[in-house]
Amino acid sequence: MARHFVIDCDTAEDDIMSLYMLLRNGVEVEGVTIVEGNIAYEQEVNNALWALEFVSGKVNKDIKVYPGSDRSLVKSFKTVENVHGKGGIGDEIVRPKKLRPEPKRAPQAILELADRYAGELEFLAISPLTNLALAYLMDKSIVEKVKKVWVMGGTIYGRGNITPVAEFNIWVDPDAAKLVFNAGFDITMVAWDLITNYVVEEDEWERIKAMDTEMAKFYVRIYKHYREFAMKHQKMRGNPHPDLITTAVALNREVIKRSERQYVDVENCDCLTRGMTVIDYLDLWGKEPKAEVVYGIDKDKFMDMLFHLLSWF
Amino acid sequence: MARHFVIDCDTAEDDIMSLYMLLRNGVEVEGVTIVEGNIAYEQEVNNALWALEFVSGKVNKDIKVYPGSDRSLVKSFKTVENVHGKGGIGDEIVRPKKLRPEPKRAPQAILELADRYAGELEFLAISPLTNLALAYLMDKSIVEKVKKVWVMGGTIYGRGNITPVAEFNIWVDPDAAKLVFNAGFDITMVAWDLITNYVVEEDEWERIKAMDTEMAKFYVRIYKHYREFAMKHQKMRGNPHPDLITTAVALNREVIKRSERQYVDVENCDCLTRGMTVIDYLDLWGKEPKAEVVYGIDKDKFMDMLFHLLSWF
Amino acid sequence: MARHFVIDCDTAEDDIMSLYMLLRNGVEVEGVTIVEGNIAYEQEVNNALWALEFVSGKVNKDIKVYPGSDRSLVKSFKTVENVHGKGGIGDEIVRPKKLRPEPKRAPQAILELADRYAGELEFLAISPLTNLALAYLMDKSIVEKVKKVWVMGGTIYGRGNITPVAEFNIWVDPDAAKLVFNAGFDITMVAWDLITNYVVEEDEWERIKAMDTEMAKFYVRIYKHYREFAMKHQKMRGNPHPDLITTAVALNREVIKRSERQYVDVENCDCLTRGMTVIDYLDLWGKEPKAEVVYGIDKDKFMDMLFHLLSWF
Amino acid sequence: MARHFVIDCDTAEDDIMSLYMLLRNGVEVEGVTIVEGNIAYEQEVNNALWALEFVSGKVNKDIKVYPGSDRSLVKSFKTVENVHGKGGIGDEIVRPKKLRPEPKRAPQAILELADRYAGELEFLAISPLTNLALAYLMDKSIVEKVKKVWVMGGTIYGRGNITPVAEFNIWVDPDAAKLVFNAGFDITMVAWDLITNYVVEEDEWERIKAMDTEMAKFYVRIYKHYREFAMKHQKMRGNPHPDLITTAVALNREVIKRSERQYVDVENCDCLTRGMTVIDYLDLWGKEPKAEVVYGIDKDKFMDMLFHLLSWF
Repeated sequence: MARHFVIDCDTAEDDIMSLYMLLRNGVEVEGVTIVEGNIAYEQEVNNALWALEFVSGKVNKDIKVYPGSDRSLVKSFKTVENVHGKGGIGDEIVRPKKLRPEPKRAPQAILELADRYAGELEFLAISPLTNLALAYLMDKSIVEKVKKVWVMGGTIYGRGNITPVAEFNIWVDPDAAKLVFNAGFDITMVAWDLITNYVVEEDEWERIKAMDTEMAKFYVRIYKHYREFAMKHQKMRGNPHPDLITTAVALNREVIKRSERQYVDVENCDCLTRGMTVIDYLDLWGKEPKAEVVYGIDKDKFMDMLFHLLSWF
Repeated sequence: MARHFVIDCDTAEDDIMSLYMLLRNGVEVEGVTIVEGNIAYEQEVNNALWALEFVSGKVNKDIKVYPGSDRSLVKSFKTVENVHGKGGIGDEIVRPKKLRPEPKRAPQAILELADRYAGELEFLAISPLTNLALAYLMDKSIVEKVKKVWVMGGTIYGRGNITPVAEFNIWVDPDAAKLVFNAGFDITMVAWDLITNYVVEEDEWERIKAMDTEMAKFYVRIYKHYREFAMKHQKMRGNPHPDLITTAVALNREVIKRSERQYVDVENCDCLTRGMTVIDYLDLWGKEPKAEVVYGIDKDKFMDMLFHLLSWF
Repeated sequence: MARHFVIDCDTAEDDIMSLYMLLRNGVEVEGVTIVEGNIAYEQEVNNALWALEFVSGKVNKDIKVYPGSDRSLVKSFKTVENVHGKGGIGDEIVRPKKLRPEPKRAPQAILELADRYAGELEFLAISPLTNLALAYLMDKSIVEKVKKVWVMGGTIYGRGNITPVAEFNIWVDPDAAKLVFNAGFDITMVAWDLITNYVVEEDEWERIKAMDTEMAKFYVRIYKHYREFAMKHQKMRGNPHPDLITTAVALNREVIKRSERQYVDVENCDCLTRGMTVIDYLDLWGKEPKAEVVYGIDKDKFMDMLFHLLSWF
Repeated sequence: MARHFVIDCDTAEDDIMSLYMLLRNGVEVEGVTIVEGNIAYEQEVNNALWALEFVSGKVNKDIKVYPGSDRSLVKSFKTVENVHGKGGIGDEIVRPKKLRPEPKRAPQAILELADRYAGELEFLAISPLTNLALAYLMDKSIVEKVKKVWVMGGTIYGRGNITPVAEFNIWVDPDAAKLVFNAGFDITMVAWDLITNYVVEEDEWERIKAMDTEMAKFYVRIYKHYREFAMKHQKMRGNPHPDLITTAVALNREVIKRSERQYVDVENCDCLTRGMTVIDYLDLWGKEPKAEVVYGIDKDKFMDMLFHLLSWF
């Protein structure tokens, strides 16, 4: 039976590959919703449409792109073109040839999809959580209708990227994240300081460069900037895959090596630790441990899925 | 030419009379949106429908009630049944006989109405500003489409009701209020510590009690609890009309005796002064003075409008 | 019987005249303590010593100057040389010829003076409250030993100077102010938006300029800059006397026309309303109304005291 | 050449053994300063005096105890008698027979000792940092005079004890901690989630119980409660030694296996993550990495020092 996904993107390189991995694995993508985050909002919309055009011949379904929130609920934030390049796939600025976004706003679309696929819809949140929070604020009954929220975000050991302790997606809209983590959704959380342990190392990068599929060439083109940034500024030995590992986890639970059910909250003060995820590891607060926090990944399984994707066409 | 209004209610006694004053004065009420605030959310919805049934024979239009946000964007809040009674019109709990709320959520309805009456729609905000903020967060273009936002909320001299310095509507959702005051809307603001100067005094109350219209009887029935609370706990000499004075101002600018264009911001920290309106009276911040802040009311003109309403039927 | 005062200064023009008014009225000034505030800390110390040299022939006592805190407890702040001039008495930079500050730090000196004059010591706080807060943090028993704390600070109607709602002294160190207002001291508070109603008007300024005492000439010299700033940037019709009115109140209760005992708290979040005084005028919090808040001043009585001072020599 | 220490205690079992370890190793203890923290303040003072009486025959020096701050600078806090027992050494309440605290307050004593041993004084901070912060606020020149501040406090991987992310000492007075970490002191920091890896395991506990020295008996008596708490509520396999490991580090650098110089800041908002230490591991803020953060301990070396202490007499 097909699985039904909404994928929520602040469309940079890793969002695009996540979308592709869903499609490559036969998931029904009911909507691509766009949210503020990595780069200029308009370009995020453009990237999503452009990415869909690249695979349009391979997918027998019109996948709809819904623009939604272009800012966090309350706080100010900044985009990170320094990380992903001006265009989010490096400095290249792309535009779709034919595809156009839907007029319907993302939070409304999410509510309608949750109604249509009540009990089945899965929400792949690889971006700030504003769109889902807005849908929730409009209608709390969405919590019962969404089967699963897969979250790329936060940290497990307080090692962040946008600040020393905060991960970008949660930091951009900590209020939205706090709402989502406390709403009662069944969440699986893949943290930044988890995925930094499973980067594409030098030999793997070379292996990909040596492939002669269109997808492998595309991969190298859109990840080059990000890879260089991560190795130069974030003490990593290759490019990480925050969104793509989360997507792999969503598609295949065996990618998870170790996880725990814990209560996770979010620091939403406008303070030093804004946007940090707080894991109540000692159960000091006595709250229900609703979130599955991932502590270990089977890198081999993930790499198999990545190469399966790169060999698509 | 008819004016088109959305009236946003946390439906207690003064919201109901505000709705009636709009109708009595021939305004097109395009929607009644319900938002969290004074009392239990379900009862707010019930009160609005029940109030519409009371005047249904006098109005030749089906007025729609849209449930929307039942909580503030981010912060926790409390209802004030102690002020308005358990039912919001005293301790009486009412239910509509026939009328039912719309399935469409208020923020989406507001967006669609703003599209339909672009440049003409007026938003009468006599409640926390969550619904309007959600509409704005979904689609910023609403700012250009709404002609006017009439706000009952805040203080001009730091004399509040729910805390020493904060007025209830703003306090309930200071984040929403901050968004609305900074979005660029053309706002007229009627403050709590303004309207406390224009209460229904003893002789006026007696005059109303002596009227034999249905509406006057209804008025006495629904304001009795509120009047007693205000006189006992808020140092007032009668029942105030925060919402109704704001409605009178919206209907008739001559009700304003003095006002100033000023920049108004909102304290949205979770702190002692949460929900306080901050008026930059010395222009220290150099922001555009977008809000018209009312500093004086023509009580005679307001009372004329009140008695005009009470003599309806 | 002589009264014993400590006067706590961030020494600009109005601090100096306050010190002189104490001396002119025969009060025992047991110490001048210096605290961060109006201008560069070193210059505040210099100004106090220089001001003492100006009246040294008229006072038969060596008055000691104790440097203390040169920063707020926790928060950052800014000095306001734009208001008082680079030197705090205009742009002139003065230095003492002979006098030197004590090696003992102000908070320790305050504790020792409170021991020596237990039950009698009065603290004239016309500056940020850091020194008194530090003394309190070191030894809570000071609360019982200090007879009275006279505070120039805060607002009564939310009309500030350093921000729209906050007065400078409280804003500089809101944490210290919160400590002092909640410690249990017997406080009389003279607010900024009270004293703005009692400025030295044009005719009064001309009358002072026409006097031929040394003190009147000195007054004109040190207030010229402040007067111009207040009239140009703060919508006032002359120079105000925040510190000096507070001093007059301390010396002569008849200067107070109206006051109320109320609970006063301080917003010490790092937020929009930082440093605002919060007056619980409805007794919503049920705290003991320890502070006497002044709501009216007898301007004639104050002006008599000012002219008495200006005619000293 | 003798080393000169001030040891700052919120005197529970591990503070006492830390004091003894200093004495056992021939350090000159110039003062024991008492600060708010683990248990009721008076009992902390009593415990320090009582502990000194226990070793009075073995030490040829009168060691002075200075009471200081009994509360945090600004925030409220709670004591943790549940952790250490009502008396801080279990539920037993002890009192000194003869010794009495000094009248001089701790912050003033610290300033005077820093003057006397300028360039040599070491401050062993195994408690909230309020006393040192107060000394600093009174006189910034202390930073140059203190050779080293050894801090037991904070977390390195966001695994706290009093909240999920905050360690007790820093949490009690995050403002003081922020001041101390940003003042410019040379700090070595030993974190809570470091020392939890080096507890006294079952066999070690049995070995200590089998010793027949007075000190070993004393150890078992005062640690019994703490050991049980840690094993029952904090997922540990024995009693930890936060203060004593820090003391061992101060006495012997070889106890450190791995450390890094990093910039450490403190979350001092009144928020979810209050009191968390923030380590800028990516140098995102470009601040000077003043603190030496310890990441590994040589447990054998530490245990040798512990047994050396337990064999004293």
